[in-house]
Amino acid sequence: MNQPEFRDSVPLHFASHQEVYEETIRKATAIFSKTRELLKKQGYDANNFVNFMDIMLGDGFIREVNPLRIHFSMFIPSIKAHGSAEQQDRWLQKAVNCEIIGSYAQTELGHGTFLRGLETTATFDEDTDEIVINSPRLSSYKWWPGALGHTVNHCIVMAKLYSKGRYHGVNPFMVQIRDEETHMPLSGLEIGEIGHKVGFNGVNNGFLGFKNFRIPRSNMLMKNAKLLRDGTYQKPISSVLNYGTMVFVRVIITRNMAQLLAKAATIAVRYSCVRRQSVIDPNKPEVQVIDHQTQQVKLLPQIAKAIALKATADNLWKMYEATQVDLETGNTDRLPELHAMACCLKAVSSADTAAGVETARYLVKVWNQALKGQRLMPTVRYLEQYATNSVKRFAWSDSTPVIIEAFQAVTANRLRLANEHIQQRVKAGRTPQEATNETGLELVRLAEIHCRGFILQSAYAAIEQACQTASQPLGEVLREICRLVVYDEALRITGDLLRFTTMSDPDLVELQRKYEASLGAIRPNAVSIVDAFDYPDFILGSTLGAYDGNVYERLFEDAMKSPLNQEPVNRTFELYLKPFMRGKL
Amino acid sequence: MNQPEFRDSVPLHFASHQEVYEETIRKATAIFSKTRELLKKQGYDANNFVNFMDIMLGDGFIREVNPLRIHFSMFIPSIKAHGSAEQQDRWLQKAVNCEIIGSYAQTELGHGTFLRGLETTATFDEDTDEIVINSPRLSSYKWWPGALGHTVNHCIVMAKLYSKGRYHGVNPFMVQIRDEETHMPLSGLEIGEIGHKVGFNGVNNGFLGFKNFRIPRSNMLMKNAKLLRDGTYQKPISSVLNYGTMVFVRVIITRNMAQLLAKAATIAVRYSCVRRQSVIDPNKPEVQVIDHQTQQVKLLPQIAKAIALKATADNLWKMYEATQVDLETGNTDRLPELHAMACCLKAVSSADTAAGVETARYLVKVWNQALKGQRLMPTVRYLEQYATNSVKRFAWSDSTPVIIEAFQAVTANRLRLANEHIQQRVKAGRTPQEATNETGLELVRLAEIHCRGFILQSAYAAIEQACQTASQPLGEVLREICRLVVYDEALRITGDLLRFTTMSDPDLVELQRKYEASLGAIRPNAVSIVDAFDYPDFILGSTLGAYDGNVYERLFEDAMKSPLNQEPVNRTFELYLKPFMRGKL
Repeated sequence: MNQPEFRDSVPLHFASHQEVYEETIRKATAIFSKTRELLKKQGYDANNFVNFMDIMLGDGFIREVNPLRIHFSMFIPSIKAHGSAEQQDRWLQKAVNCEIIGSYAQTELGHGTFLRGLETTATFDEDTDEIVINSPRLSSYKWWPGALGHTVNHCIVMAKLYSKGRYHGVNPFMVQIRDEETHMPLSGLEIGEIGHKVGFNGVNNGFLGFKNFRIPRSNMLMKNAKLLRDGTYQKPISSVLNYGTMVFVRVIITRNMAQLLAKAATIAVRYSCVRRQSVIDPNKPEVQVIDHQTQQVKLLPQIAKAIALKATADNLWKMYEATQVDLETGNTDRLPELHAMACCLKAVSSADTAAGVETARYLVKVWNQALKGQRLMPTVRYLEQYATNSVKRFAWSDSTPVIIEAFQAVTANRLRLANEHIQQRVKAGRTPQEATNETGLELVRLAEIHCRGFILQSAYAAIEQACQTASQPLGEVLREICRLVVYDEALRITGDLLRFTTMSDPDLVELQRKYEASLGAIRPNAVSIVDAFDYPDFILGSTLGAYDGNVYERLFEDAMKSPLNQEPVNRTFELYLKPFMRGKL
Repeated sequence: MNQPEFRDSVPLHFASHQEVYEETIRKATAIFSKTRELLKKQGYDANNFVNFMDIMLGDGFIREVNPLRIHFSMFIPSIKAHGSAEQQDRWLQKAVNCEIIGSYAQTELGHGTFLRGLETTATFDEDTDEIVINSPRLSSYKWWPGALGHTVNHCIVMAKLYSKGRYHGVNPFMVQIRDEETHMPLSGLEIGEIGHKVGFNGVNNGFLGFKNFRIPRSNMLMKNAKLLRDGTYQKPISSVLNYGTMVFVRVIITRNMAQLLAKAATIAVRYSCVRRQSVIDPNKPEVQVIDHQTQQVKLLPQIAKAIALKATADNLWKMYEATQVDLETGNTDRLPELHAMACCLKAVSSADTAAGVETARYLVKVWNQALKGQRLMPTVRYLEQYATNSVKRFAWSDSTPVIIEAFQAVTANRLRLANEHIQQRVKAGRTPQEATNETGLELVRLAEIHCRGFILQSAYAAIEQACQTASQPLGEVLREICRLVVYDEALRITGDLLRFTTMSDPDLVELQRKYEASLGAIRPNAVSIVDAFDYPDFILGSTLGAYDGNVYERLFEDAMKSPLNQEPVNRTFELYLKPFMRGKL
């Protein structure tokens, strides 16, 4: 691990895009060569090697992510999952030895997880016993597969199979895409990398277009489905089987997320013990930030979540393994459940909203002023009525101004409780500062609700004013926008509304219904509204958001500007890849 | 705007860190020269120029953010806010003309917004009528100020003033840091840029250390506070006055956020009208993604929020202006309110949690199976009891397993409602697919809660199993971790718990109390727990999270590796800055 060739000479975040790629390839091949060498000494086991490469390596050494990882995590597993015994004989050992290096190409420029939407076609030609692959249009180009740009020479391609004029669903095909000797792209293909991304810039994500590109029929992967010499198609026992690789990836993602969260928690907790900021007791030095309850609430649940997510990933992994055993006996019963759980876990993520504790202290201060009958400043004046009246539930109705008032009622009631809790803690012997710190969660939350109420009030006032001079149809749109943001915020604090207002369960259902109606009402005007923001293209600088909507052309044009796309073979092939693949590195 | 010199020859995201900076300086000076030239033709007004430079320009042309912006947004405003009439005569016109270019240095390596924690000292020397500035330790170095690295030659420095052996609080000082002729750093200073960041790589954020660096007493900015020849300090009428620049920046940030959100909404809405994904009706083509209700809920509230936030920023701006008028008459009453509101608005942000609608469809399917008495798969088996029993509230208690069951009860009850709403929509003439799409919000939310319940259940099972062999103290820590994540998740769905379980208001208060206690209980073990994750430093690759805690040394070491730090003057000074500052560009 301390070998100099595994390290960057200069931190890669200072390097250019091309330098990042070249250095990543240099390092990845050095690490993998060394590992293979060590494993061979201990009695070389191909499966151990693959597992070791896939699971353990890459992210630590190669922060921009290892472009060879997909070879181990998707290309080789796909050969196992979809290749017949004869096909596994042909490709598996070569792949394990890295004599061929492959990617997995499913996603297209215009289509992602909705597999039936893929456009790449694979048409059987009975005369030559070949399959002809085509990208009918630009949106059909394969787009995003890792290492596809300039790294791999093989690829498993998901495409729609046609034979005898009939459509037989999406199937996997083994496709050689570059010459093994020269690494030149083969004729009939257009290959390159998709350019700079936020993160993953070592991965060499690529694109691949086909123009009447021919492969032998025997290159269709036929463990599950089969295509006979006469063009007859034999279905797999379950159509889900062809999607196995994607399920595997989702299962892996949950584990990766747990690892990332654990790393992040490690960094954050350690730093929070070094960093000092603000005092709790004004007569003492600044505290370690981890001593602020508001910081604890950011950090500590993340530790717990990392562990919970790891347990979840392990649980999911067991489900995956059990399903794989079932599949060997032809039992596909648990596949949909696994698929659903893997999708769901992939999608769940969380984020925190924080508001300055400064504000909360300010609110406590003015609350106590109000209790003494003092006059408050405009943005907090609403607190006066709650501080002087006896406690009662706010009368709910779902008109815009009343909902905004409800935010104020919630803030006031939360403020009353937080203030009481501070005083209880003081009576129990805490200093006012300690008591305030220990009531931090409540304070931050109520400060946030206060702030959101202010945002809603500001929006409402501005829109009502604009409506005085706007045309009647424009006024309607503006008021709908206001309702939408008010409903959206209200539905985020239903717990508070149920506690502190007279909102009933039917009221809540009705609010949800109005929210849905508001979404539908704004939908037809959405483009006009953002057009009215009036950002010219050169300010937006976005291929995806340009005024003319020529999304794919712009994406492609932009990718072609990458320096890596200016020559067909990158020099790392001769320097590292070729010697590595020939076992000479 | 179409001038070739305002454009990048190659997209800057392909360039190296140093190239990004050099190109940014080239472009920024070209744009500002041109603007100045045009304004002069119309009758040059210095204030118009400053406002124009600060507000209108930069972000569109210079995606890596303009390093000269801080000169207009903080350096010049600070001279106005803190400089006496005589001092404004000395520096203001020069700054407006860009004959001198400045930054604003408050933040230090070890201290941010907690102003009293700053460590840089400014000690009055009566013998020479000078002020001696020092950075007592590495954590006292100024750190982050924009353009401080290699761009500016002046800087307003916030430092703790001492005279006659007494401390007089944090005050602002005008400091020249580089030679105007050669741009060499002045003796007694250590200057450089802090390296690569996520975004803002054109800004040239810098560091600045002082070693017995002397400035004339007359360089202390004395509009509010005064330091007399004999060392007497005259306080400002309000200590808040010295923080005015930071309040101004927070007010600006809210406006910037509204603009960024509006830009993002523009991009997202337009792309969502081009991109097609998945069908709603299986017999029709894939729909524009904006037609999915689940996509609408992501996009449309953002449009509304951008508008609401803009209205809020305008409102805040009015508060700021009113406060400025008050200040001229010595009235500081509204400053704390403004400060609190500006802090709060700066901190508020939101993020969405999404779960796959796939999973939701799966849940609806198995729910209907359960209604028919069919046996369900393990992860959804809990639904069976809710599908066969009559509706009743789940009996709340706050033990860990019961809370986890409560998540299941909530999911089941939400599923019951969503299923009823789908059926109602079908009865009203919708196709089942349309009805499902229109119930998308409810479905996604319940799928998320289902998923979170699964995460909690997985964590609970894994920890209970580990506790069977763990030591008693270790077992206690593990169970505390489990409680923390369970409480944390439960407190995010209090609305649901109040609706669908017997949880009362006192129950909720008690849960909050337990959550706070759990944070406190885990706090002492937090470092041990993350140490136990056992990531070696070379895997973490983090200056902030290294095992030894030598945070500042590592940060500094890392910054010194930047190519820009390898020579004291960057060539863009001779190429662009100097000619620009001399008006020769």
